[in-house]
Amino acid sequence: MDTNCRQQEEFRNAMAKVATYIDEKKGQFVDELQTLCSYPSISRDGEGMDSFLPVLEDFLTRYDCRHQVIPVRGTYPYVFAETRDCSQHEDVRLLNYLHYDVVPPGPLEEWNSPPFDPEIRDGCIYGRGVADDKGPLLARLQALEAVRAATGGLPVRVKFFIDSEEEVGSPHLRKVMRANRELLEADACVWENGFKDESGNPVVRLGTKGSLRVSLTCRGANADLHSGYASIYPNPAWRLIEALKTIRSGDKVLVDGFYDTVRQLTKDEAEALATTVDPGAQEKELEKLGLPEYERGLQGADVLKALVGEPTCNITGLTCGDPDDPTRPVIPHVARAFLEFRLVPDQDPTEIAAALQAHLADRGYDDIELDTLGKSWPSRTQVQSSFVQLVKSAARAAYGREPAIHPSSPGSGPQYVGEQVLQIPIVAIGVGHRHSRQHGPNENIRIADYLEGIKHFAAILLLMPHLHDQDAGRNA
Amino acid sequence: MDTNCRQQEEFRNAMAKVATYIDEKKGQFVDELQTLCSYPSISRDGEGMDSFLPVLEDFLTRYDCRHQVIPVRGTYPYVFAETRDCSQHEDVRLLNYLHYDVVPPGPLEEWNSPPFDPEIRDGCIYGRGVADDKGPLLARLQALEAVRAATGGLPVRVKFFIDSEEEVGSPHLRKVMRANRELLEADACVWENGFKDESGNPVVRLGTKGSLRVSLTCRGANADLHSGYASIYPNPAWRLIEALKTIRSGDKVLVDGFYDTVRQLTKDEAEALATTVDPGAQEKELEKLGLPEYERGLQGADVLKALVGEPTCNITGLTCGDPDDPTRPVIPHVARAFLEFRLVPDQDPTEIAAALQAHLADRGYDDIELDTLGKSWPSRTQVQSSFVQLVKSAARAAYGREPAIHPSSPGSGPQYVGEQVLQIPIVAIGVGHRHSRQHGPNENIRIADYLEGIKHFAAILLLMPHLHDQDAGRNA
Repeated sequence: MDTNCRQQEEFRNAMAKVATYIDEKKGQFVDELQTLCSYPSISRDGEGMDSFLPVLEDFLTRYDCRHQVIPVRGTYPYVFAETRDCSQHEDVRLLNYLHYDVVPPGPLEEWNSPPFDPEIRDGCIYGRGVADDKGPLLARLQALEAVRAATGGLPVRVKFFIDSEEEVGSPHLRKVMRANRELLEADACVWENGFKDESGNPVVRLGTKGSLRVSLTCRGANADLHSGYASIYPNPAWRLIEALKTIRSGDKVLVDGFYDTVRQLTKDEAEALATTVDPGAQEKELEKLGLPEYERGLQGADVLKALVGEPTCNITGLTCGDPDDPTRPVIPHVARAFLEFRLVPDQDPTEIAAALQAHLADRGYDDIELDTLGKSWPSRTQVQSSFVQLVKSAARAAYGREPAIHPSSPGSGPQYVGEQVLQIPIVAIGVGHRHSRQHGPNENIRIADYLEGIKHFAAILLLMPHLHDQDAGRNA
Repeated sequence: MDTNCRQQEEFRNAMAKVATYIDEKKGQFVDELQTLCSYPSISRDGEGMDSFLPVLEDFLTRYDCRHQVIPVRGTYPYVFAETRDCSQHEDVRLLNYLHYDVVPPGPLEEWNSPPFDPEIRDGCIYGRGVADDKGPLLARLQALEAVRAATGGLPVRVKFFIDSEEEVGSPHLRKVMRANRELLEADACVWENGFKDESGNPVVRLGTKGSLRVSLTCRGANADLHSGYASIYPNPAWRLIEALKTIRSGDKVLVDGFYDTVRQLTKDEAEALATTVDPGAQEKELEKLGLPEYERGLQGADVLKALVGEPTCNITGLTCGDPDDPTRPVIPHVARAFLEFRLVPDQDPTEIAAALQAHLADRGYDDIELDTLGKSWPSRTQVQSSFVQLVKSAARAAYGREPAIHPSSPGSGPQYVGEQVLQIPIVAIGVGHRHSRQHGPNENIRIADYLEGIKHFAAILLLMPHLHDQDAGRNA
């Protein structure tokens, strides 16, 4: 039996023990998640943020992590934690990025059980934060215990970097990461952004899209005018519509240079996407949304390729006239469009904003005011990276099926900060599913998914010592 | 001295006495207007409508008119009144259309004095209804007294038809007019829609524009979706913008057939408009509105011609996304545009709505829902009509200057109902000015304008016996 085969057998044996342990501990693990989610920690308005911190510290201590609170001027403290026990591969370090804040519960009447009193119904746990991000956080701590109990110790050092402001855009993340670069040094990082797709495939995400949010403001007179005068005074709504029409047509963004730096999906990435496409699930999805088809009649793997690989220019809102009575007979004095671009590597939101400004000026619309409201950069870990292969192997062992590898999330997030500051491979996994309603009412995860999520992270831990071996665990 | 010359001299003598009488009565006349405007009569919410009626009846009696209240199912009563005294030309009847309802005062904090406690400041009376329409109403009653006192009686029969619901679109006007056609029979009608322009010219209006108000609704999925999915799900805002762009371009409405029935201004109408153009006043107007120029760079008489003679397609509002947070990262599931067409003779709002529907269908936008929210027809009395000539002569005598004859108001109103049902020439005069802020806070008229307005109507009464004489009073 050669080294590789022996390693594989060892992994399979260990994984079997770990899985059994996790299944046996189901009651305790779920109880703890309910407890963690019963404390609000809403970064947007600060509710519960201070009192949640000792609860988090208690859990970190309970799972034998030493931790330190990182005070940050202007926001709530970040938290760093690290396992104490590692005898085998002290030099291999796995970092986790997670966050302890949640979004507000929203309209309480839309919840079927109180958002901060998590309830189990039909095999699911309902509560604010169960999917985003207290479930992922606790699952990784519980995985530590499972590996310790089943194998007698942790194979590598595990670090946790826990954000306090992810739900408000992590404005201080770059500064905190930079200031703590040594503390965060690691061989790879597991982010928090995966889920199970419609067909039940665990989705591993290798990055996020970037974004550029702008408003375009077109002004007419200095006040609304009687609409009888529409033949002699300009209406900024018409002008804005003409300008918008030059920005996008059909499915294409017409801003000069917009596509110039788009990194196409590689053959490997496209193939990885294609393996888990389920046309039946797509049909159900469309029916649920009341849509006859996808945009441009996209089908099968092309849907996923567009979702993951294409940049977009979306209108999130139009405002013009009196929102309470848009039929009021006036020439509105201002019309505004809110655009949100989602960007893929290697588009740069700053460059796109400048290109848009130039585009408008070139077409005679330099009176239209462009205001940048927010931007973030795209990120994408290469699918060929050995860490991606390792996470994939771990998923196979934990879920008993092939994971879906998404080169990018359709959404945006701060992962690019980690990529830029830490310069290590970053891969996102999760414990939720396609309809976990993160940020919505009745946020939920399935208990079965939660246990598989714990197993997945445990499997990653077991494989980590072999990260840099040729084809580490590829056939595990 | 021939008949015509004698008539003219008689008119000048009578007018001189009438004018003197009105100037002497200034105090009483203004007091009465303040009294009339101190009673609210808001048709939109009904405030004061019932208690205003006896006040109105009292004024009609005071000015020696017999009157009858016309109950109307579904709204407040209309009022009809008629003078008792006429010995000279019993067969000549002049009808007045006025209304006793007003719009709500709007935000009280924007008023410098209470809207229903009329105050005099700097030669102006401020209060809701002084310009629209209690000033015009009372001015015509007071003119009766002036003519009686100065000449010993009324030369013709004068009728008043007083609407209770003009400010909510007079939905029952046609029915009430039809049911009372005999009562309303007359040789001509004076409507209530004139004012003094920027240069101080009294504006006589011969009609109104029609209107068609519609909403265009474009739908996507059955709920807002996460904006990350913009590459695979349709955004109705983009589709609506594309559809809108086909409806209007530059200054032209592109709906097939839109201009087919437009009645061009006649040479007489265009000339009448051109006589009172004041480029200085136009420049001041633009400066006040913060605009560098009129639409399409229009100048001089072309501004008035466009204002009066051209149909328009105006956007009064756009709604899409969350009005409280239009940057929310969603694909909005619905986008809506509110369009208001202003129509000139002989455009028909029903035909234009059908043409718009066909236009959208022909271009593949039959998924966009068109809802008609309101319509009214254009009206225009011919400038060559002898009644227009009479009103013009009367204006010269009352104001001492040439009136501006506008073939149409830029706005819309129920005048077309009068035109269609009564089939007599209708001309609108008023007592306000360009900045009377009808419907806004601090509605006001100038006292000097008010007295001139009374004189104008008195002059019309004096000339009425000669309505059908060749060139009645043309050189008076």
